[in-house]
Amino acid sequence: MGIKAGVVGAAGYAGIELVRILLEHPLFDLCVVTSDANSGTRVDSMYPAFIGKTDLCFSATEDAFMQNLDVVFLAVPHTASLSITSKFIDAGTSVVDLSADFRLKDPQVYERWYATEHTNVGLLKEAAFGLPELTAPELEEAANRKADGEAVLVACAGCYPTATSLAAAPVVQNDLMHEDGIVIADAISGVTGAGKKATARTHFCSANESVEAYGVAKHRHTPEIEQILGIDKLVFTPHLAPLNRGLLSTVNIPISPDVLTEKGLDSTGSLLSLYTDFYTQSPFIHIMPEGVQPKTSSVTGTNDAHIGVVYSKDLKMVIATCAIDNLCKGAAGQAVQCANIIFGIDQHTGLRRISLPI
Amino acid sequence: MGIKAGVVGAAGYAGIELVRILLEHPLFDLCVVTSDANSGTRVDSMYPAFIGKTDLCFSATEDAFMQNLDVVFLAVPHTASLSITSKFIDAGTSVVDLSADFRLKDPQVYERWYATEHTNVGLLKEAAFGLPELTAPELEEAANRKADGEAVLVACAGCYPTATSLAAAPVVQNDLMHEDGIVIADAISGVTGAGKKATARTHFCSANESVEAYGVAKHRHTPEIEQILGIDKLVFTPHLAPLNRGLLSTVNIPISPDVLTEKGLDSTGSLLSLYTDFYTQSPFIHIMPEGVQPKTSSVTGTNDAHIGVVYSKDLKMVIATCAIDNLCKGAAGQAVQCANIIFGIDQHTGLRRISLPI
Amino acid sequence: MGIKAGVVGAAGYAGIELVRILLEHPLFDLCVVTSDANSGTRVDSMYPAFIGKTDLCFSATEDAFMQNLDVVFLAVPHTASLSITSKFIDAGTSVVDLSADFRLKDPQVYERWYATEHTNVGLLKEAAFGLPELTAPELEEAANRKADGEAVLVACAGCYPTATSLAAAPVVQNDLMHEDGIVIADAISGVTGAGKKATARTHFCSANESVEAYGVAKHRHTPEIEQILGIDKLVFTPHLAPLNRGLLSTVNIPISPDVLTEKGLDSTGSLLSLYTDFYTQSPFIHIMPEGVQPKTSSVTGTNDAHIGVVYSKDLKMVIATCAIDNLCKGAAGQAVQCANIIFGIDQHTGLRRISLPI
Amino acid sequence: MGIKAGVVGAAGYAGIELVRILLEHPLFDLCVVTSDANSGTRVDSMYPAFIGKTDLCFSATEDAFMQNLDVVFLAVPHTASLSITSKFIDAGTSVVDLSADFRLKDPQVYERWYATEHTNVGLLKEAAFGLPELTAPELEEAANRKADGEAVLVACAGCYPTATSLAAAPVVQNDLMHEDGIVIADAISGVTGAGKKATARTHFCSANESVEAYGVAKHRHTPEIEQILGIDKLVFTPHLAPLNRGLLSTVNIPISPDVLTEKGLDSTGSLLSLYTDFYTQSPFIHIMPEGVQPKTSSVTGTNDAHIGVVYSKDLKMVIATCAIDNLCKGAAGQAVQCANIIFGIDQHTGLRRISLPI
Repeated sequence: MGIKAGVVGAAGYAGIELVRILLEHPLFDLCVVTSDANSGTRVDSMYPAFIGKTDLCFSATEDAFMQNLDVVFLAVPHTASLSITSKFIDAGTSVVDLSADFRLKDPQVYERWYATEHTNVGLLKEAAFGLPELTAPELEEAANRKADGEAVLVACAGCYPTATSLAAAPVVQNDLMHEDGIVIADAISGVTGAGKKATARTHFCSANESVEAYGVAKHRHTPEIEQILGIDKLVFTPHLAPLNRGLLSTVNIPISPDVLTEKGLDSTGSLLSLYTDFYTQSPFIHIMPEGVQPKTSSVTGTNDAHIGVVYSKDLKMVIATCAIDNLCKGAAGQAVQCANIIFGIDQHTGLRRISLPI
Repeated sequence: MGIKAGVVGAAGYAGIELVRILLEHPLFDLCVVTSDANSGTRVDSMYPAFIGKTDLCFSATEDAFMQNLDVVFLAVPHTASLSITSKFIDAGTSVVDLSADFRLKDPQVYERWYATEHTNVGLLKEAAFGLPELTAPELEEAANRKADGEAVLVACAGCYPTATSLAAAPVVQNDLMHEDGIVIADAISGVTGAGKKATARTHFCSANESVEAYGVAKHRHTPEIEQILGIDKLVFTPHLAPLNRGLLSTVNIPISPDVLTEKGLDSTGSLLSLYTDFYTQSPFIHIMPEGVQPKTSSVTGTNDAHIGVVYSKDLKMVIATCAIDNLCKGAAGQAVQCANIIFGIDQHTGLRRISLPI
Repeated sequence: MGIKAGVVGAAGYAGIELVRILLEHPLFDLCVVTSDANSGTRVDSMYPAFIGKTDLCFSATEDAFMQNLDVVFLAVPHTASLSITSKFIDAGTSVVDLSADFRLKDPQVYERWYATEHTNVGLLKEAAFGLPELTAPELEEAANRKADGEAVLVACAGCYPTATSLAAAPVVQNDLMHEDGIVIADAISGVTGAGKKATARTHFCSANESVEAYGVAKHRHTPEIEQILGIDKLVFTPHLAPLNRGLLSTVNIPISPDVLTEKGLDSTGSLLSLYTDFYTQSPFIHIMPEGVQPKTSSVTGTNDAHIGVVYSKDLKMVIATCAIDNLCKGAAGQAVQCANIIFGIDQHTGLRRISLPI
Repeated sequence: MGIKAGVVGAAGYAGIELVRILLEHPLFDLCVVTSDANSGTRVDSMYPAFIGKTDLCFSATEDAFMQNLDVVFLAVPHTASLSITSKFIDAGTSVVDLSADFRLKDPQVYERWYATEHTNVGLLKEAAFGLPELTAPELEEAANRKADGEAVLVACAGCYPTATSLAAAPVVQNDLMHEDGIVIADAISGVTGAGKKATARTHFCSANESVEAYGVAKHRHTPEIEQILGIDKLVFTPHLAPLNRGLLSTVNIPISPDVLTEKGLDSTGSLLSLYTDFYTQSPFIHIMPEGVQPKTSSVTGTNDAHIGVVYSKDLKMVIATCAIDNLCKGAAGQAVQCANIIFGIDQHTGLRRISLPI
């Protein structure tokens, strides 16, 4: 018998990717997938990739409470997690939340950016932040509580914060950033990032053959990245490009060449070594060789992150790029990675797929 | 220790897909991947999807002969298999050939369509044709010879023949086709079908935002489909569409309504039952419910084939559609399925991946 | 002062393409563009391609009646034209209708395929069918009535009927088709063909990287093609492919080789001459040289149709392909071509744009 | 008789776009289009968009010298212009050069970035830089010389410099940038930007469904942007996205809020007014309303640039975005705009096309 798992909000793009990963996972046993709007519909009639792979039907969210689950994944819009998370925790079900509700440690920041009150500050204090490469201690602590029989809560990082923070962390956390500097991140996402809802913007003929910026200076992932990196200010501009999956964040980090020289990091090569060392425990992170830039297609369908680093002494800048699959390492894959950790499983389990090479 | 396997011509699109599948396969042990043009290059530097997944380098074809392989997959252009196949067979290595060299039973047909002499008629007679859903006896016979210690040869079906024949076989092989009728198949393929070579035609800006027919009335897959289905004449027109992977064949099969009525098959529903029964032993074939058409994206990266069937009594026609991934069920996946069979392994092994749902 | 023109249903894809063409047309003066759902919205705020090109706003359909227009283009769903057409005609405004309402000469056929009564049989009798290369006499007769001061009605051909009929007409109308034969047309369309409505099917992530058939044996363009070609039966299967604009119809026409031999048409080359002669008066039709197939991207944004022809004596088949832009020659461009004709203007006027070469 | 024009290097992407625009231009008379590699080939057989539009064939570059042209457009790789430009100028033919050879005013900068000697410093001094919205005086001076009978040289701006400089100029040239600040521009281009050559990188299956950065901290357009804007340092990172045409540059310009407050520019709205005023004489520049971001598809096939501006006082940053068609305003369209200017024609002439709305 595996670990009993469920997905709430399974009909959306992150939710259905969770379904795929959990069905292929050797240790989780996917018992229930909910979608109130599609209750009773076979998963494979809405997503024909599942034909011959599962007979599951979407059920109502209520059903998830009755299954005595070990873990539930919440792939719901923000505010929806605020109330149902407590119900699962109280029932002894650990929660891996993909929404934004428990990501921001300071409820006032949440309220400022999401324009709604945070009504569950109690649980917020207990939530571990789920970006395992950068928040291992929090997740380990949660895993310990879980091992002691407690139901725990993980708030998984968003897609842009994941790629942007993975690209910047080795420089920022090693105090290499210029003290007066400001990080500028320009990121590009595929259209799955805009969600499953059919809108004028997600119509094929609108998104195809076009690129555009959006949410300039006000995207809600901004405070999340600031929190992860421990920085004050971030200029963050997301862009939409015509592909299904894939997210590339190009992060410009101002440095002081003197500091890098002092620390013996005065070249792209030595910075690459720094990155490699920084992520040495992280099976999903791969640092590109000098002169090579990551491509999003190389990580499609996987939980991997590919990182490229260039140091320009002349410009006093590190330009780091990180490619992920926004639905996988940026959402469902990372959630399963976090679940693996809190259940004491090798974090790699069920997440070893090789991306299609072409 | 697994079954020792190699791939010759591994740098091409079918070859690299074989590498992916074999690396994920639980029973095959991929020892050597060759590409004379790229000998010494790391696989993951040419195809970054393999970063962190393998340290293999491409080697010269010669190296494959020295490995004492149990099985070798040949993903080479036609004529190249003619000579090297014998060398492997003679050395006790079974061969799964993805080229066209041993597909056509009649060497004169080969010579007419490929404009070159067939120089290995001896082996041609022994080759089993690899489209397992339709050639199970041939493959079983080869498996028996293999079990007796013989090195055997499988000539795998091409991509268009696979989809087109799977769509048409239940009608044709049950003698439902009108005796004077002619099968007309129009098929659409993604650009991986045109191969890895960078040409004016495969340039992104040429293939993107366009569709076109090609090889009209002279595509070399025509005699192969005729052979599989046992028909005299076929009008076959392939088309190129702007996607990476995916192949849809729409097959128009003229029937006599009287015959269908007589056999109790006088409705789309009863034909769907016929199809379902026909493929009942085939784990990769899925018949769509009435009114549903297959989409190629549902099978991307998998060995599955999705088939839709519509019967129009008024038009005296069955219109059957089949969607496959041209590189997987249309090439590498089918090759591994055939290898599974001749090695006495469940044909499903290593081929259970779920396609990305979106 | 130009010819006063209006577009009803201007916010849809065919409607907005009409707006583009009419704004660039030297003789029409676009006075009103209506969209009841978007009344008051600037055209360039919904379609930013018009920024700096026009200050027009969408208005209510009612406004179109008050403008004393010379001609109105109706880009509305079927049944909507049935009533408003008479109002325009009665007011002295000629109507170029892009809907299906007045295309089928026999109201019973309309009722069978569109599952609704035809409530304007009177006007139906007077409507000229708008596919100028094949219906010149009807349009000329309408132009004469127009010249005599009458308001006239043109019912423009649909997108699939245009490409399919242009491909088949020279063979069919020269009595080269086999008397017992049945025409089989498989056509591929870009996603603009599915219309502007944001649905699960037109979501970028659903349409991208996939092809599928739809409407098999029941697409409403079937009787329209039969009517144009004067044939009894047609097997017509449309497909959706991931591009914005473009439509390719591959038409299989069975012939009797004896008849072709008799008429001295026993080669692809002589058939190409037949096609060239057939369309010698048609500035928009271009016959590809022998061995060349048309690409849809070559005609994007233009009113041109590119036609390829292959004759297979062995298969007793002519395979003709026709590429058009479904929104232009398949809709808005053809409507303006028809308007040009009925207003006695060179049919080429305003329709000479060169497609982007890449 | 029009102005006699020729295109050297007409078979490449910028060259063929020039052919399209010049064929549609009412005042230029396109006499010769050269491509040494394709001499003798019909333009419409290589680019079927020209079928029925021109009977021109590519000829050898030598032929362009014999035509007594009024103006020649050079769409050749860098270094190729260095010698042939003088030959045209000496023969009395004005030159509009799309290569990089005469863009950088300082030959040492050219030599540093292009790793080759500048062998025509004499002409370099006389070249006017062609980005009309920002270099009007230079072009006017050249137009005056031209009016006096002199053959003149225009070195047109590159694609990234055009979009990036148009986005940044109103802030930088009004001295609003922070004195210690550094401009950071991240730009995204469609694949036509990578040129016509068929390579592994431009293969459909490589570019499709992927985004990547390239040329990080070393792209040759960097010094050109610095020169146009008159800045010392620029962090410039270009990205490749899967579309044919389109270029979006997102430019981060650090400012001092105090300075903006002082100048009454303390809001996005007032900056938008500044931009509108700055470009008031420029028919191709359109400033998006507050809250609206430009999309590249809105300008495809046109010479327009759409600019969005956001001011974040909190971040002390202006984030300006500019969308252009890289082949048109970024290359061929701008070249024709420059030619219009030096020939004393309204710069808008032949460049009024409306982009396809969908």
